Amino acid sequence: MSNASPGAWRQMDDLAARGDRVGLQSLLDDLTGTEVARAMSHLSATEQNRILTTLNAIDAAEVLDEVPDAQAAELVERLSVAQAAAIVSELPSDEQADILAAIETNRAELILSEMEPEQAADLRNLSSYAPDVAGGLMVTEVLRFKQTNTIAEVIAHLQEGGDKYVDYEIQYSYVVSDTGVLVGVLRLRSLLLALPESPISSVMLSEPLFVRDQDSVDDLLDFFDEHEFLGVPVVDAERRLLGVVKRHDVDAALTDRADGEYLKSQGIVGGEELRTMPILKRCRRRLAWLTVNIGLNILAASIIALYQDTLTAVIALAVFLPIISDMSGCSGNQAVAVSIRELSLGLIEPNEALRVWGKEVTVGAINGTVLGLFVAVAAWLWQGNVYLGLVVGSALALNTVISVSIGGAVPLLLKRWNVDPALASGPVLTTVTDMCGFLLVLGFATLMLTKLTA
Amino acid sequence: MSNASPGAWRQMDDLAARGDRVGLQSLLDDLTGTEVARAMSHLSATEQNRILTTLNAIDAAEVLDEVPDAQAAELVERLSVAQAAAIVSELPSDEQADILAAIETNRAELILSEMEPEQAADLRNLSSYAPDVAGGLMVTEVLRFKQTNTIAEVIAHLQEGGDKYVDYEIQYSYVVSDTGVLVGVLRLRSLLLALPESPISSVMLSEPLFVRDQDSVDDLLDFFDEHEFLGVPVVDAERRLLGVVKRHDVDAALTDRADGEYLKSQGIVGGEELRTMPILKRCRRRLAWLTVNIGLNILAASIIALYQDTLTAVIALAVFLPIISDMSGCSGNQAVAVSIRELSLGLIEPNEALRVWGKEVTVGAINGTVLGLFVAVAAWLWQGNVYLGLVVGSALALNTVISVSIGGAVPLLLKRWNVDPALASGPVLTTVTDMCGFLLVLGFATLMLTKLTA
Repeated sequence: MSNASPGAWRQMDDLAARGDRVGLQSLLDDLTGTEVARAMSHLSATEQNRILTTLNAIDAAEVLDEVPDAQAAELVERLSVAQAAAIVSELPSDEQADILAAIETNRAELILSEMEPEQAADLRNLSSYAPDVAGGLMVTEVLRFKQTNTIAEVIAHLQEGGDKYVDYEIQYSYVVSDTGVLVGVLRLRSLLLALPESPISSVMLSEPLFVRDQDSVDDLLDFFDEHEFLGVPVVDAERRLLGVVKRHDVDAALTDRADGEYLKSQGIVGGEELRTMPILKRCRRRLAWLTVNIGLNILAASIIALYQDTLTAVIALAVFLPIISDMSGCSGNQAVAVSIRELSLGLIEPNEALRVWGKEVTVGAINGTVLGLFVAVAAWLWQGNVYLGLVVGSALALNTVISVSIGGAVPLLLKRWNVDPALASGPVLTTVTDMCGFLLVLGFATLMLTKLTA
Repeated sequence: MSNASPGAWRQMDDLAARGDRVGLQSLLDDLTGTEVARAMSHLSATEQNRILTTLNAIDAAEVLDEVPDAQAAELVERLSVAQAAAIVSELPSDEQADILAAIETNRAELILSEMEPEQAADLRNLSSYAPDVAGGLMVTEVLRFKQTNTIAEVIAHLQEGGDKYVDYEIQYSYVVSDTGVLVGVLRLRSLLLALPESPISSVMLSEPLFVRDQDSVDDLLDFFDEHEFLGVPVVDAERRLLGVVKRHDVDAALTDRADGEYLKSQGIVGGEELRTMPILKRCRRRLAWLTVNIGLNILAASIIALYQDTLTAVIALAVFLPIISDMSGCSGNQAVAVSIRELSLGLIEPNEALRVWGKEVTVGAINGTVLGLFVAVAAWLWQGNVYLGLVVGSALALNTVISVSIGGAVPLLLKRWNVDPALASGPVLTTVTDMCGFLLVLGFATLMLTKLTA
């Protein structure tokens, strides 16, 4: 696979530069999805643009489908409105909604107004859902028939629409009442086993299983865990059929969530950055998080300024301040990560901060003791003063207990307050533990000053 | 969902304590998978054990299937060998292999020796695969027939084995030669449309698609991206049929990878910790990472000791050392996260460190300038000395460029050297950037000492 790819983007670009639509298409057909995504990410904005506009809309949509959503949104933003509308129209509805949600609102509106009014209305509707509920994950491409339709009518309809339905990944179709309420599921093979003039209600499975549009991705996971289905119909509060959620899209949403948690925990606002994004956008997003952090950092470090006399008297302490800040942050972030993981898995609820604290404090006490001893011995050996070891060791030990306690609890509290725990836990944690750590080590040192300067 | 669960674990435990197998089973049937997992994680080790041993092996296996793998392994380790073997035997083969791989080797061997020899041999085989290749993701429960079998023989076999095959999630069965080489795929419905005495080779689809046992999860993702299949047969180098990889298991492997990257980046060795794990195990794993870190931290901070005279002269610098250390770490970790993400997506290759560096250095220069100005102004306002601002600001600006350069490149270099980038990038990064940061700020300060002490 990797043998084929190094030159792929140059070849793609050459074909696009020559306007060789057929050659470009056949090259793309030979590449895997990952190879297409990698090739696109190696080309400049102009080159990527040229590839999309050289291809016809259907093939360009396939390229968009292979690259990460954030990159697809960038690509669409750079196309003309008409080109963008043509290409986006060829994507599955869930992809359409994801991409339009990721681009600038005014531009998204312009693109929508270029699309067929019915498709645009559907899409506005889809975009109103949060990305992690059934409504945000469903596709609206679903075969639906009225319960009063006869089998002959359904078969005729299928035969007419043949081409269109290839994209529907049909296994089932759905039967609705006059008001659109889901009343049954139709296995296509049942159509072959009954009289053509019977109504489809006579061969459908009634009382079908469904999920609600506001059901969370965790509910969907449970659903697919219990039922060996490839997809499930989504209904609104009045049980009207809205679309279908596919098992694969639930799985993909879980991967996206895990990826987003990782990126956000490292300060990537929005949970996605690709190096194909424009530099200023990347800077702006990273800075959004860094500038909050530097403010909090200065706040925390200002504690040190309060103890300048102690520091001047025992300058060796300055070596240990960054160590205590860093190590407490590390211990606390371990606890943050475990809490975010357990929240994701549904193993703990946001109101269980106290229980989590109970599970962390012992770990903190043990690890704090080990780390404290470590740094105490280092300080003692270095300066030959056992009291210096005592001061920095006990400060680190105590601060480790504090930081795992905060680290374990803070994601739960943030979640209760509707703040994204993955993004905010780190800064909150390190600010508090830095302040505590500096206070502890410099406070202890002030108390022991005569011993330290002896 | 959450309304039902708060008392579920108490109820489960009460039923288990009374030995009420039937009551416990019917309670578990009413709970979703997430509820079962949450309930188990709220019970003590003894209580969890009692629940598994109260249930029959099949139902206990279902409980194991709902909890995270790491917790399932813990549970199995605490059972008697006979109980463990009975319950593990009821799991799908991929789950069996995952659990046995996660428990202590001697104990796993004991459990294997209690299982049916054939099953144990299969399982030893499965356990030899890495978890992220086709062999590690496949199940061996696959319907296979010899190409010389007649349709009547196959139908008779299916009818006999009815119960057993319920678990196989059959859609297809596979046809092999006398030596086990995959030669065809059999759609079960084709069995109904041919003469019973014909060999199945007459109705099978020949030249079936397959993957190799050593194909990576990314290859599998590409495969399922191109083919709308639910599963694909896995073969060895001689094209002998080994098992089937299901689409859902590929998706799940991707989520696991993303979760593991997040946890490892925060210092959770092994990529998994649950608070149901024994405290000492949790401490040991976290400490494995923390003690390496504290050693590196002490090494980095020892730079400060070289500049004690400068520090004593300008004690205000001590306030800025932790800020520079922290902020450089933050900027660098953003670059690490984006590189790990792009590696996962296959958008960059480990040999492209130079290209990544080119993409990071501009971001670092812009963000460094902004952060440097920020901290420069803070220092100037606080001490009324513009040179202090100049020293700390330019040090932070320069060190931001250094840290994003290292942060972007280090995951790629570690990957080339076969070190896990998620686990090791952070410590490598912060050690180098701390050292550079301390050198820069204290070095600049030493050069400007007369201006700073004026």
